Amino acid sequence: MTEVYLEDLAVGQTFGSGSVRVEAEAIKAFAAEFDPQPFHLDEEAAKGSFFRGLAASGWHTAALTMRLLVTGDFKPAGGLVGASNAISWSRPVRPGDELRVESEVLEVRPSKSRPHQGLVKMRSTTFNQNDEPVQELVANLVVPRRAGSAKSQAAPLASEDG
Amino acid sequence: MTEVYLEDLAVGQTFGSGSVRVEAEAIKAFAAEFDPQPFHLDEEAAKGSFFRGLAASGWHTAALTMRLLVTGDFKPAGGLVGASNAISWSRPVRPGDELRVESEVLEVRPSKSRPHQGLVKMRSTTFNQNDEPVQELVANLVVPRRAGSAKSQAAPLASEDG
Repeated sequence: MTEVYLEDLAVGQTFGSGSVRVEAEAIKAFAAEFDPQPFHLDEEAAKGSFFRGLAASGWHTAALTMRLLVTGDFKPAGGLVGASNAISWSRPVRPGDELRVESEVLEVRPSKSRPHQGLVKMRSTTFNQNDEPVQELVANLVVPRRAGSAKSQAAPLASEDG
Repeated sequence: MTEVYLEDLAVGQTFGSGSVRVEAEAIKAFAAEFDPQPFHLDEEAAKGSFFRGLAASGWHTAALTMRLLVTGDFKPAGGLVGASNAISWSRPVRPGDELRVESEVLEVRPSKSRPHQGLVKMRSTTFNQNDEPVQELVANLVVPRRAGSAKSQAAPLASEDG
């Protein structure tokens, strides 16, 4: 896979990922550090909860999705840098689930204020091993234009373009 | 702090958190597991990047924010369960930064389809030690109503109300 620039991207392009298996121990370890709630920490305590059983923190699913994206088929020059995101979880991630991500380009637009880069809106859906969606992420990614097409100075952050 | 139900919440209420210091080693460890890009992994490699120096993964900031929320002043009965979120990062989180969160209730509404619960829209802004915002999270949280006010059965997920 070669690195892509804004000019290489078009609405409708899709990208895949590898997969990652989520073990109960990883669910509990992430939760102990970042989301210490009973339904993410302990099978017994989780039974009577909203999730009716141990479930991964949504932020764990988000972090695993990022790993699948970074190691997946979409390689923007300069890296995968998100400015803003909408994220929702439709279904719990359970111990033993195997996750993969499918991404689709929804929008490509050059930045008005920073002509050396642009914003790409991408929807990345995380599926479990039964092809059921567990997370939808719509991210606005900062992607550089090819050097020469405009100024190539990096700017510290691009959130004004949000 | 006692647990709160939907009936206890009103637009404009605010909640605080403790604080957490983000060390370089934690930034690199999170990145190695979930977001293995040079600007999150290595000071030298980060210098020439978009971030112009080592910066925490946005998903690390999100996860630390969740920890601050779970251990903070807002204790909904049944736990902190988000259905959908908008999240944006306005400024890099650097090694040594100390983060805290301020939350404000933006909206409170009973669920039409699930009378035993409701949705609370809450904005949680994560600040660094200079009181600069580094992340804004607007979350739709599932919060139960008091038993007796309606059915008190837990439902597996509430995303249809999202």
